[in-house]
Amino acid sequence: MLASRSVTRQLVRNPRRWNHAAAASPPLNSVTEQDVAHFAKFLAPTSILSTIGSTPTPSSELSIYNNDWMGKYYGKATTVLKPKTTEEVSKIVKHCWERRIGIVPQGGNTGLVGGSVPIGNELVLNLGNMSKVRSFDPVSGILVADAGCILQSLTDYVAPHNHIMPLDLGAKGSCQIGGNVATNAGGLRLLRYGSLHGSVIGLEVVLPDGSIMDQLTTLRKDNTGYDLKQLFIGAEGTLGIITGVSILTPSAPQASNNVILALPHFDNVLPLFKQVKKELSEILSAFEFIDRTAYDLAVKHGQGRALNDDEVEGAQCFVLVETSGGKREHDEEKLNDLLENLLTADEPLINTGVLSQNPAQFSSLWALREGVTEAVSKEGKAYKYDISVPLATFKDVVDQTRERLRSKGLLHDDAVMHVMGYGHVGDGNLHLNIVAKAYTPEITDAIEPFIYELVASLKGSVSAEHGIGAMKTHALHYSKSDVSIKLMKQIKQLMDPRGIMNPGKVLEMN
Amino acid sequence: MLASRSVTRQLVRNPRRWNHAAAASPPLNSVTEQDVAHFAKFLAPTSILSTIGSTPTPSSELSIYNNDWMGKYYGKATTVLKPKTTEEVSKIVKHCWERRIGIVPQGGNTGLVGGSVPIGNELVLNLGNMSKVRSFDPVSGILVADAGCILQSLTDYVAPHNHIMPLDLGAKGSCQIGGNVATNAGGLRLLRYGSLHGSVIGLEVVLPDGSIMDQLTTLRKDNTGYDLKQLFIGAEGTLGIITGVSILTPSAPQASNNVILALPHFDNVLPLFKQVKKELSEILSAFEFIDRTAYDLAVKHGQGRALNDDEVEGAQCFVLVETSGGKREHDEEKLNDLLENLLTADEPLINTGVLSQNPAQFSSLWALREGVTEAVSKEGKAYKYDISVPLATFKDVVDQTRERLRSKGLLHDDAVMHVMGYGHVGDGNLHLNIVAKAYTPEITDAIEPFIYELVASLKGSVSAEHGIGAMKTHALHYSKSDVSIKLMKQIKQLMDPRGIMNPGKVLEMN
Repeated sequence: MLASRSVTRQLVRNPRRWNHAAAASPPLNSVTEQDVAHFAKFLAPTSILSTIGSTPTPSSELSIYNNDWMGKYYGKATTVLKPKTTEEVSKIVKHCWERRIGIVPQGGNTGLVGGSVPIGNELVLNLGNMSKVRSFDPVSGILVADAGCILQSLTDYVAPHNHIMPLDLGAKGSCQIGGNVATNAGGLRLLRYGSLHGSVIGLEVVLPDGSIMDQLTTLRKDNTGYDLKQLFIGAEGTLGIITGVSILTPSAPQASNNVILALPHFDNVLPLFKQVKKELSEILSAFEFIDRTAYDLAVKHGQGRALNDDEVEGAQCFVLVETSGGKREHDEEKLNDLLENLLTADEPLINTGVLSQNPAQFSSLWALREGVTEAVSKEGKAYKYDISVPLATFKDVVDQTRERLRSKGLLHDDAVMHVMGYGHVGDGNLHLNIVAKAYTPEITDAIEPFIYELVASLKGSVSAEHGIGAMKTHALHYSKSDVSIKLMKQIKQLMDPRGIMNPGKVLEMN
Repeated sequence: MLASRSVTRQLVRNPRRWNHAAAASPPLNSVTEQDVAHFAKFLAPTSILSTIGSTPTPSSELSIYNNDWMGKYYGKATTVLKPKTTEEVSKIVKHCWERRIGIVPQGGNTGLVGGSVPIGNELVLNLGNMSKVRSFDPVSGILVADAGCILQSLTDYVAPHNHIMPLDLGAKGSCQIGGNVATNAGGLRLLRYGSLHGSVIGLEVVLPDGSIMDQLTTLRKDNTGYDLKQLFIGAEGTLGIITGVSILTPSAPQASNNVILALPHFDNVLPLFKQVKKELSEILSAFEFIDRTAYDLAVKHGQGRALNDDEVEGAQCFVLVETSGGKREHDEEKLNDLLENLLTADEPLINTGVLSQNPAQFSSLWALREGVTEAVSKEGKAYKYDISVPLATFKDVVDQTRERLRSKGLLHDDAVMHVMGYGHVGDGNLHLNIVAKAYTPEITDAIEPFIYELVASLKGSVSAEHGIGAMKTHALHYSKSDVSIKLMKQIKQLMDPRGIMNPGKVLEMN
């Protein structure tokens, strides 16, 4: 992400971009004192934070809504509204529609692409006060919740019923279910439980003109007309504001286990994935890849449980396998059989495998994989790319990027120190990291648009799970054809002709 | 379905309905000899079946394209085109777009709601000649296939790789994958593998103006802009023609097993479902409900393996449970444990359970459930409703319908003989069947719109998996709000402003 900082700066600094978009439709209006007075008619005083109202809020109190958690994006909103009901959201949006005021829908503000903070002085509509569970059916497992419910609190809510949420993210302590759906969040459980396009059953959405689209069904099957809710999953708030979510929660597994495998060659990863899928079948819940560079860095910075020297020797990469199933003995038997088959094969795909023996070791093995992010940030400045490419090309993408930097004379201790890959093999999602001593224009120029073009040549995605937000609008065309982008823009224009919904995000409307 | 025959007739007989729609936009044109000559410039002679070309086809040869398999819907197309490539589809559509000729996209023509045959003399574009597998990746399990591939042939294609298709239908021998996606087909594997909105990875679609939207990705994760492909899943060909499908195929289970359970009361179904989900967890692959009336009828007409008299005694309903898992011994152990726990409970939820001991018994137990359809048709004339309602209301819906008929004096041997319910409890999908001596207007009037209103009052769906087609356009409002229907119509108008794509289906565009 940081790699695109220069582009981001350009977006913020160069007002022509935004004015250019405005040329197509009348410019958006700023929030005025009269607007705030209007909102005060139907919102509780605690639902209004504004620097321009009759009882102004200090602007410092607005900074957590104006800025993202990485400190990369800075908005200039004067007004943040925190409605408590769908009807209040509807009234706010109706007013903004009539007044042509831009709105940024905001959940936990934990995104990575600047999608949930204003580009200029749009109004921030924060869903944090809508945090009630509306219903839960322990038989079907269908949960209906306000958009502002925090993911972790929903996980806690369904736990006593022996259910889990179908997604799990690092940000679970602050991200909200509405934001998860709006950004089509992926996370750690996608391999097992699929994407939100499958697990979201229904949505309640306030459309740009303020009307409420109630599709908050609890039916798993409903083939009556177009499945409109799908449009809002991943639209990052540019087509409407999600106010309620109906979602299918799976039964909780009774047991989890994991193992880390050391592989002599990357070429073994794919046959290994095939064999693991076959032997572990329905209990496989994660298959994560870490290349040697990433592993060494994690160990260097004290992340997780390192293998012994002889276990690591000759390993080009590592794979973390997790199982989640209904009966511990059965799962352990399957996992032990797998390991035995792998180690006793005529031409073994792995050098060695280390099985966790208790919950502490389970966490410690996971930390080797999850700790790469922290290790990278301790080591230097990271250019991070979240891409989807065919599984077979994972190593090639890393190698080509490294070669590119070498050919530009940038692969040495004073420029780029490491190029590495890790991520979700099971999902085809590679995290490509370039660790440098410092962010420099030379490095940026060497890798962009090089990487985007490389991804495009492999028919890959320039954003596997993080979305487009404000950061990657210029890169959308690397993953989507002109025909697709044209249709997206037509749909945006149809549903939000005044351009008030999260302006400047996802699509360059010019 | 048959219950709506009167409405269907009205649609066909009453030309005002269609003319009314035409008032909004210029009427569609018929195919002329010149059009056929144009198509002959780029299509092989075998790809053109037309009663009006220079070498006319006998109209009898067109009847399998004009009529549906139930013999309920009759079109009057003069011309059927069977292109072999996406480019040919694009050229046909471009021409029809310019000439304002209506097109009916047609797959295996196995639908139940008249969606795949013409209402008037639209051109039929049959995908049957596009039946190549484009690629299969045995590692990721992602299959890319032409839209015209038959479901069974795809099942056979992936079987040697130890994979299965994520859906299974009675019509698998003739239905096509493009049609499955266009109608968002449900079927027997939905409980386990989810809906096509989750398992379809990408689509290639020819849009109404003939342009090709290539989103035939093989990436599981791609968060770049709106997920446009979702719009076409379930749109029944009204927004464009699906020409290629990329779909995630799951690993094949190594073992399957089933059991039929006899329950003293319907009230036990839901606690039973909860317990079964908990104990069988990830290996549960079907949980099917059959009420006593449906069971008795299946047995009466020789469907499947009947239980003994003492096993059936006192049973108000039955449940069929299927498991599919990675290891036979493990699965059997889980299933045996479940049965033991059920039978030894202080207050048992079941009277008895019969476990299949071999493949023949496995099929025979399934036949009890699947044979209800045939038994019903042997018993009398069936009014069939495919609805989704909350699980807890299954019995209530059946009882209320029976009471309604009784109150109208229609529940006796010369009118309605049986009212019964069966279906996919796991999916919330109830098949409500009313078996009568004959179809009569009195019965129709007694149950319609009564049933639709009942379903609407329960926030249910009037079409769980069969779609809307030509048959239920008038009933859409029972399951979707005005706001939703308005937006659907706007999207239809945006994408197909000339109204050429499957006219008269899904939406009443007037």
